[in-house]
Amino acid sequence: MSSMVQTLSSMANAILDQPTVIAVTVFVALLCACIVIGHLVEENRWANESIAALLLGLASGAVVLLVRKGQSSQVLVFNEDLFFIYLLPPIIFNAGFQVKKKRFFKNFSVILLFGIFGTIISFCLITLGAFLLFKKIGITSLTMKDCLGNKNRQIKISSKAIYIQVLSQEQTPFLYSAVFGEGVVNDATSIVLFNAVQSIDISDIDGLTALKLLGNFLYLFFTSTILGIAVGLLSAFGIKTLYFGRHSTDREVAIMMLLAYLSYMVAELLSLSGILTIFFCGIVMSHYTWHNVTESSRVTTKHAFATLSFIAETFIFIYVGMDALDITKWKESNASAGTSIIVSLALFALVLVGRAAFVYPISCILNCTKQGSEEIEIKKQFIIWWAGLIRGAVTIALAYNQFSSSGTKSANVDSMMITCIIIVVLFSTVVFGSVTKPLIQAVLLNNANPLTSRENDFVSLEDLRLLSLENGGPVDNGNNQSAPRRSKLQLFIRHPTSTVHHLWRKFDDKFMRPVFGGRGFVPFVPGSPRSTAGETSDLNNSN
Amino acid sequence: MSSMVQTLSSMANAILDQPTVIAVTVFVALLCACIVIGHLVEENRWANESIAALLLGLASGAVVLLVRKGQSSQVLVFNEDLFFIYLLPPIIFNAGFQVKKKRFFKNFSVILLFGIFGTIISFCLITLGAFLLFKKIGITSLTMKDCLGNKNRQIKISSKAIYIQVLSQEQTPFLYSAVFGEGVVNDATSIVLFNAVQSIDISDIDGLTALKLLGNFLYLFFTSTILGIAVGLLSAFGIKTLYFGRHSTDREVAIMMLLAYLSYMVAELLSLSGILTIFFCGIVMSHYTWHNVTESSRVTTKHAFATLSFIAETFIFIYVGMDALDITKWKESNASAGTSIIVSLALFALVLVGRAAFVYPISCILNCTKQGSEEIEIKKQFIIWWAGLIRGAVTIALAYNQFSSSGTKSANVDSMMITCIIIVVLFSTVVFGSVTKPLIQAVLLNNANPLTSRENDFVSLEDLRLLSLENGGPVDNGNNQSAPRRSKLQLFIRHPTSTVHHLWRKFDDKFMRPVFGGRGFVPFVPGSPRSTAGETSDLNNSN
Repeated sequence: MSSMVQTLSSMANAILDQPTVIAVTVFVALLCACIVIGHLVEENRWANESIAALLLGLASGAVVLLVRKGQSSQVLVFNEDLFFIYLLPPIIFNAGFQVKKKRFFKNFSVILLFGIFGTIISFCLITLGAFLLFKKIGITSLTMKDCLGNKNRQIKISSKAIYIQVLSQEQTPFLYSAVFGEGVVNDATSIVLFNAVQSIDISDIDGLTALKLLGNFLYLFFTSTILGIAVGLLSAFGIKTLYFGRHSTDREVAIMMLLAYLSYMVAELLSLSGILTIFFCGIVMSHYTWHNVTESSRVTTKHAFATLSFIAETFIFIYVGMDALDITKWKESNASAGTSIIVSLALFALVLVGRAAFVYPISCILNCTKQGSEEIEIKKQFIIWWAGLIRGAVTIALAYNQFSSSGTKSANVDSMMITCIIIVVLFSTVVFGSVTKPLIQAVLLNNANPLTSRENDFVSLEDLRLLSLENGGPVDNGNNQSAPRRSKLQLFIRHPTSTVHHLWRKFDDKFMRPVFGGRGFVPFVPGSPRSTAGETSDLNNSN
Repeated sequence: MSSMVQTLSSMANAILDQPTVIAVTVFVALLCACIVIGHLVEENRWANESIAALLLGLASGAVVLLVRKGQSSQVLVFNEDLFFIYLLPPIIFNAGFQVKKKRFFKNFSVILLFGIFGTIISFCLITLGAFLLFKKIGITSLTMKDCLGNKNRQIKISSKAIYIQVLSQEQTPFLYSAVFGEGVVNDATSIVLFNAVQSIDISDIDGLTALKLLGNFLYLFFTSTILGIAVGLLSAFGIKTLYFGRHSTDREVAIMMLLAYLSYMVAELLSLSGILTIFFCGIVMSHYTWHNVTESSRVTTKHAFATLSFIAETFIFIYVGMDALDITKWKESNASAGTSIIVSLALFALVLVGRAAFVYPISCILNCTKQGSEEIEIKKQFIIWWAGLIRGAVTIALAYNQFSSSGTKSANVDSMMITCIIIVVLFSTVVFGSVTKPLIQAVLLNNANPLTSRENDFVSLEDLRLLSLENGGPVDNGNNQSAPRRSKLQLFIRHPTSTVHHLWRKFDDKFMRPVFGGRGFVPFVPGSPRSTAGETSDLNNSN
């Protein structure tokens, strides 16, 4: 017994002595717990891993608060670097690596419209609304410019907070790519808007400024995309030429991982959109590089990237939960509980309205103009609106960034903003998060059979030709085979997207694949005895 | 042209604004370069990845120095946490995960002897030598106790610096496990010695103190080992019971990774030897857990752990190279170049002597007592001595820790020590590192044929029985099959180690494997059509 007390007291000493060690230990232990819980509730339709992580974080925050006797629940000081340098890149890269490329590019115009105009509309509305709201409540220390700057964060509430998918890629492919793609594209929009707010005098906005902003956006969008594609092609070419697998499979995995990360860092360094860059790098890598590496590297990269992304996501949710109880922030904000709740509710309403204000109009416009293409039904519009609202880990990070960096301004207003945002994020993640899965099932999938088959109608001629060459690509051989293939030529004529796709496939086969490798351009034959033997011997001998 | 200048200037601004981003970018770019260079020089017997990393680090340090006009070459401030919390655990875990378990345990007594007594002998000798040396040179500010404390680091020069293998596991299995195992075991010894030096009055060392130290060591050794084994078994049991693979292979990989890391962090938190803990955790995981997961998780973990370890190693070498040019340290040490070189040479000689002083005597004792077992020839003794000298990344980390934490003492002596250690490490890594591979080939492998077959004679009866069950374990089905199997029974009687091994195998099969899984206790059949199909379908469908 006394030895146990001794152990505990030495642990307590260790806690005081080694803040990093204890923080890492706590987080790793919580991550393990989340994984186990997530596994156990997998079949439960109301719960999911993120909610488990958030609640676990909350619980452990409470425990830390009790142990420290109400001092602070912060175990790990969260800084923006941790989030933007270490946690976000694996999540976005994996999203690009595993995205169903065909669907994504098919819906590219929709994604761009939502990403660009949606963000702008939402930005204007929320800024105006928040400005009026704060004036009414009596917070006068925020100037119009502050408000604009701050609201930039809320654009991101309404838009960026979608990275992590609730919509499953298999069940609702159109919605998934629309909502997810919007999240990726609006990163570029956000950067442009943020810089614009910082530099432009709001009093005289004219057509020229708007044009300049559009130019800026296009510059950012294209340079970021091209950088990502260039790095992806470089990796494909390098691995194909040098054939790393000859000596070690680890080197292939390492170089893929490091090059993808490098693309993100270089983009950030050049003040481009790192998120767009690494996303497109992931797409190119899954299209070319992935087919050039050895079989064991393929399995490893596919699962290792997914695992890293999964750990990073869970980490963010645990952190958000734990941080919600940070007592110093609540104390600093000396607003009453009533004011906090009112402000939170108002913010929440603003976000809801701001999102609705662009989802429905843009959907209508799309439905009117593109008669031939697939229609965005009212149910789908609802889901796009709804899905964009949940998940706020990114929001928390941005809120901290925004408010902690402006240290000179009134501290209590800042704290109040942060606490309000935490309330909004917690509420939306737990409530909306648990409701969404059943909701989507109820709204869409009950009468989804015609919808699913409509989705799958999009099978190009090239696809059928290449179907024989398919050797288990990581992403885009979904449930195409089950689709009815009666009217291919008809579809091909009716859909312009298919023509683009067809031309791209031709170009890809003729010029790109011979240089950069890719499916069908590597000597590997799937399922052959050689590959199995190679795999096994590789397992046995390479250590 | 002007746009390029603009880009460059914005990059320069970015460099000033975002120290972390630029540091990470530089390191990631260097890592990529190292991997490519390492791949290209793979067939070259004089060069290897570590030397490439070190030289690249040196070169980029020089570039940074020029760019910053001689201010400082430090891009990333190295702290001990980075090393001990993030870089070391993957290296050691992977070592345990991939080690040839049978060889390692066969040589366990040798490893323990080298690890414990070797470290103590080396410690005493180097301490004494350094004390006399510094007295002669005229550095009087170091007290005897300082000197002892400081020298603890040098024990680690002579011993810990062996983690990263030069000896390949396939070519020289005995030497590999002896040198490597020594490195793992002496971590515990070092902790005990370090704590002893801090707390014990040196003037009255008697038998009781020595006994107490031994008790401490045994406590540390066993608790650390048991913790590692317990976490490993927990992971095996958990994965076997819950069957994570049912829902996602990523969860299996994540939980293995996180539990291993957790074992290290908990050990550090309890002031145990995290290195021993995570090493044994790796061994247990490769013996049980690895066989309980799905086929794709097996491939993923095997390669992902190796890749992480590989990246961590390379990172350390780049850092050491880059940091060697850190101008502030060289300036602070106002000793002349002559003094620095003399001190470096003296330190180097001391380390050489200190290592020789325990390798040769202990080998002799072992040869005399264990007649039946394998003899450590003079050539092998030479390699054990030699191999322990090279590689100093860990040393650098420890030197910083030692000297930067004692900030109150004379700063210039500290800086001098650090610069001297850098000289020693650079010299030993580049010169010894490039010479070792050819040297081992020249000394051992020319007449290695009898040796190799002698090594392989150790084939227990159990092995043969289990040979049919082997399904590509990650580690221990080496080149046993090629060994002559004439005299198994004879060997079995002559070697007591085999008996222990046999008993362990019986116990393992009867009690451990039914509970914790492991080879032959999972339904998976290697190379069967089912497994190949499962693998491929998993690749296709799980995203």
